[in-house]
This record gives sequence, structure tokens and C-alpha cells, in this order.
Amino acid sequence: MENSTKHNNSLRTVEWKNNKVVMIDQTKLPNELVFVEYDDFNQVADAISTLVVRGAPAIGVSGAFGLALAALQSKATIKDELLSDLEHARKILFATRPTAINLGWGLEKIMDVATYGNSVEQIKELVISKAKQMADEDIEINKTMGKMGSVLFDNNDTIMTHCNAGALATVAYGTALGVIRATRESGKNIKVIATETRPIQQGSRLTVFELKHDGFDVSLIPDTAVGYSMANGLVNKVVVGADRIVKTGHVFNKIGTYQVATMAKQHGIPFYVAAPLSTIDMETKAEDVIIEMRKGSEVTGIGEKKTAPDDINVINPAFDMTPPELISGIITEKGVATAPYEESLKKLFQANL
Amino acid sequence: MENSTKHNNSLRTVEWKNNKVVMIDQTKLPNELVFVEYDDFNQVADAISTLVVRGAPAIGVSGAFGLALAALQSKATIKDELLSDLEHARKILFATRPTAINLGWGLEKIMDVATYGNSVEQIKELVISKAKQMADEDIEINKTMGKMGSVLFDNNDTIMTHCNAGALATVAYGTALGVIRATRESGKNIKVIATETRPIQQGSRLTVFELKHDGFDVSLIPDTAVGYSMANGLVNKVVVGADRIVKTGHVFNKIGTYQVATMAKQHGIPFYVAAPLSTIDMETKAEDVIIEMRKGSEVTGIGEKKTAPDDINVINPAFDMTPPELISGIITEKGVATAPYEESLKKLFQANL
Repeated sequence: MENSTKHNNSLRTVEWKNNKVVMIDQTKLPNELVFVEYDDFNQVADAISTLVVRGAPAIGVSGAFGLALAALQSKATIKDELLSDLEHARKILFATRPTAINLGWGLEKIMDVATYGNSVEQIKELVISKAKQMADEDIEINKTMGKMGSVLFDNNDTIMTHCNAGALATVAYGTALGVIRATRESGKNIKVIATETRPIQQGSRLTVFELKHDGFDVSLIPDTAVGYSMANGLVNKVVVGADRIVKTGHVFNKIGTYQVATMAKQHGIPFYVAAPLSTIDMETKAEDVIIEMRKGSEVTGIGEKKTAPDDINVINPAFDMTPPELISGIITEKGVATAPYEESLKKLFQANL
Repeated sequence: MENSTKHNNSLRTVEWKNNKVVMIDQTKLPNELVFVEYDDFNQVADAISTLVVRGAPAIGVSGAFGLALAALQSKATIKDELLSDLEHARKILFATRPTAINLGWGLEKIMDVATYGNSVEQIKELVISKAKQMADEDIEINKTMGKMGSVLFDNNDTIMTHCNAGALATVAYGTALGVIRATRESGKNIKVIATETRPIQQGSRLTVFELKHDGFDVSLIPDTAVGYSMANGLVNKVVVGADRIVKTGHVFNKIGTYQVATMAKQHGIPFYVAAPLSTIDMETKAEDVIIEMRKGSEVTGIGEKKTAPDDINVINPAFDMTPPELISGIITEKGVATAPYEESLKKLFQANL
């Protein structure tokens, strides 16, 4: 791993370097740590659609970097031509994961800033510096969130996490794993238990990989061993990320989160969610959130290895909902919200104004 | 599947045929239905430890068949030599899966009957006929248990099951899946949801395979989707098998059972355990049961497909403990025990005298 690009010893998922976009190819993990370099926005679009890069914050910044490449690639000599080239690239980048909220958000921010430039050269500079700033902000938010959360964890804690809310889901540092990193940086000695997270195995492929890379004491368990681990005193706290949190404190996160939270409650183990304010949706009601159903082949096999008979019905929801009564606190970059969440989340947004 | 050995349309897992032991090689499922033949008890021991055969009742009978092979293999000319050869084989067979009570039970029954013979020839005959009788009894017990349990299930129920407590875990028909088979045979229309059951995937490889083989409407879920399925009203009842039940009603079963039971309780869904009296251990205390820890490579990959980095710590317990307060009833061939279990289980054994 001598060529690994590190950010404070942590992996850097996506980066702007010498007018190129450098990414970890996550499809090669955990077997190989490979960095890929792109100088064409079409390559970035391919990378997003083939899951070279994944995780909502990482995709948002990757889209922004894609537009920065498109600006550099443009042969335009006047502003309107350049804006038209950017709009063309935006459409191609957006089409890769049209439901990912952060992707649209990242692209919009760049398109917005592009209109402020006067000359072609100025626009190119603005676009590149804005994209780099978005990447830096993602890391800063995660570090602040990490510090906010770290006070909730004690020396010698073993912390369970589910899925990958780590450096590899963000630009660097991570949300739930950012809290774990910050806890260690605060001088506390901690261990981590990562669930495998079937069917896509973000736990074994990504979380265990990046925590091992950073020298953490991490153990892997199958998703079936959550109850055993808690019943046998192997876990002191839980922290997970979130895909969406609604104002009532209902958390939508990777399938299996709900049962980890239920088992934690059963054993009196604090269960925390770490997510930036951008993940909190103060508009939508819990019952209106549509849970994406994914293809059955994710469950009936792994890679080419078939583990179930052909033509079997599969129920494969991507997310589940954890109700607020199971959640000890929601860690954000503005502070930790606790029940009642409708009140505490609103306060965090007011503090953000 | 033209060469499949069926018992009333259900698969026959282990059988004594022409002085050989014939088993379905369950490690090849669901891709191939392969029958293997053994004439050496060491092969049977290997088959048990490498999960060619698994499931408490099936390994109990397999152990007995292993001793029958050992008797046939013995060059002993006097009774004591034969008993000593059998004792040697018993130790090797017993060491394969220490947690499963049925293995010790099956081996003891054969060792017991062996002492009644006078001549070497008579002992060999006694041992073989006892082992065959135990196999037949297993099927009869499962059918009776199925009838006892079927009254607990309603028309149009969707029944969740974990792991494989089916024909493939027994000699034939199954315990938990025997109850499901008997419920259908009683004229009720039912559906089944099977959990994948990582890390060995007995759910996707075996339960889904055998239920599909028998024409059931079965859906597969990843273990992470238990909570989702229950929260979304997809499950009416749960039935699982057991590897060991102690007199207080604590159930030791496949890793993950405890969290399925907890989620069922949370959603007011009846959770049943189906197991023959031979699975009930009236001697040992729950806290004295040793849970087998299995090798990490079961969790860090699937087949040759690696899904986690090298040299990662893995916690891979084979079983967990479900406390009696989560269990709606224990279905046996002598009736259904309900709380308080210490009393109701004792009554079932008295009825058995």
C-alpha cells in the first residue's frame, strides 16, 4: 500500500490532484487498494455508475469534480459556450445515479458558481476551487461531527457499527467511523466490531478494510451474531450512519440497522446515529419515505458464487427504519440531538443559521 | 434430480444401504444434489465436521451409523475388543461437533445396545439394527411433532424460519420444516420466509432448496431483513429448530435465532421452537452450555470468493441462546410445552415414560 493517498492516516476516497480526479476503486476492495486517475468527466460518470465510488457524500463531491474536469476539457472561448459544455456534462453525470440526492446537490452547487464568473478562465478557476472546497468541507464536517460524538464514548469501549459510514462513503474520515476515529484521537483506547452487512457486505469489504488500514482493533461478525455479541458483553456502544433522518427522529439506514438498534435497546447498550445536517430531511414524513427494493441476485449469490436455487422469490430492501425510541442520540456537526427529536433536531438547524 | 432418494416427496438426508452410509452432500447444495457413500467411520466423522451432514437429529443418526460402520470395520474376535474399537470410534465421532446434544445421545444409544450382545457377530447385528431403527424413529417423531405443531398455524399464515431445521437437518421430513409440512398437509394454505442464515447459508442453500423441491411458496431474505419483514407485516408466525434445549426453556440454536426471537417479541409475532425430546437436556444448566466457535474464514468469504481483508479478527459463534421469555411454545413429539417451561418440559418427559 506504499502508493496510498492518506488523509491523516485515513483513506482519501476522492481527491483533486494536478488537474485530475483520483479515486479509490472500491470495486477492487478488499482484495486490492487501487487508485484510479481520471482526466475526462465521462470517466467520472462511469466510475459513479459502476460503483468505483459510492456513498452519498462521496458521490456528491465526485460529481462536482466531474464538472471541474468538464470545465478543463472545454474548448469554449466564450462564457455561454462553456456554460453549455458544463450543462451537457451535468446531464451525463446526473444520469448515473439519478436518485442520489447528494449528486444533484453537488452538481447544482458547481453550476451555480459557474454563472458568477465573467471570463472562461475565471469560470474554470471558480469551478475547480468550489469543487475542492466542497471536498474539504465534507472532511471538516466529518471531523467536527467526530469531535461532537467522541465525548459519548469511553476508554476501553468496544463499539459496534453496521454497514460502512466511513472514509470510503465520504471524501475522507467518515461519519460513524469519523466518530470512532475522533474517539481514538481524543486519547481513548477503543475496539470496533463490524457487522458483515449482507447482502452487499459493506461491513466486511469496506469498514473492516478501512479500519484495519488505520490500525484499529476491529473484529468482523456475521449479521446473525449481533445478539450473541451483545448478550455476551462484547459491545458497549453502537454507532451507525444514516441515509435519511426525518424530523421525528426516524432513521432510514442500511437494512439491518433496525434490528441492531432493537438488540442494543434490549441489552441497555447506547445506540447512536452519526450524520451531517444535510442528511436530515425536515420536510418528509417517515411513512412517506419509499424504501428502495434491490434485485434478488444480491441475496442469491456473491459474485459468481450461487448460494440459492434459481428462480427463488427474494425480498431485498436496501434500507429499514429505526424508530426514535431506540436511538440514544443523533450526532451531527452542530451537536448531538436527543429525544424528543422533533425539538432537538429543529434546534440544531436554528444553530446552523 | 432423477436419482434423488425421497421419503414421501421429501429428501432423505442420511440412510443405511447395503452396509454403507448414504448421505446427501449438503456442501454441494443448492447447485448439485449429490449423494455420497461411506464405508469407513472416519469418513462419517469428516462428513460431520465438514458439514456434509448437519442438523442436530441428522448428525445424531449419522453418529450412530458411523458406529455401525466402525462395528463392521472392526477386526475384533472377542466382545471386549469390539467394544474397545467402538469406544475409539465414539471418541472420534463425538469430537466433531461438541455442542449438539443429539450426537452424544446417538452415540450413547449405540454404545449401550452394544453391551447387550454376547458375540461379536451379535453385537454387529444389534448395532446396525439399532442405528437403522433410530433413523426410522427420527422420521416418525418428526411426523408426530409436525401434527402436534400444525394446530398452532392458521390458513394463509406466512411463517418465517431461520437456518435449516428441515428434511436436510434430520433423517427426513424435518422438525421446524416438518411442522410447516404437516401444516400444509392439514389443508392450510401457507407461505414461508427463509432467512439466508450467514455465515453457512443453510437458509438459502438448504431451506429454500428443500421447500422449493417440495413445491412451497418460499421467499428468501438476507438476515438483515428480519426486522423489516416483521415491521412491514410480512410475517405471522416464526418456527425454528433447536440444537439443545435446557430444562428452563433456554434454547440453543443457530446463530441469529436470538435476534429473530427478539424481533418477533417486539412485533407480537408468536415464536415457536420445534424439537424432539432428544434435543432437550434436563441435566445441564443454560450457563454451562459451551457454544462452539467456528473458523473465521466462514465469514471472510463465500466459497473461494473473498469478501474481507486477510488476517482480520472474526467472532463466529455457531449458536446463540434464546431465553424462554421470547418463546411462545416448544413443539415436541409428545405435545407443545409452554411457559413455565421447567414444569411443562418435565411433564412431556413423564408422558414419555
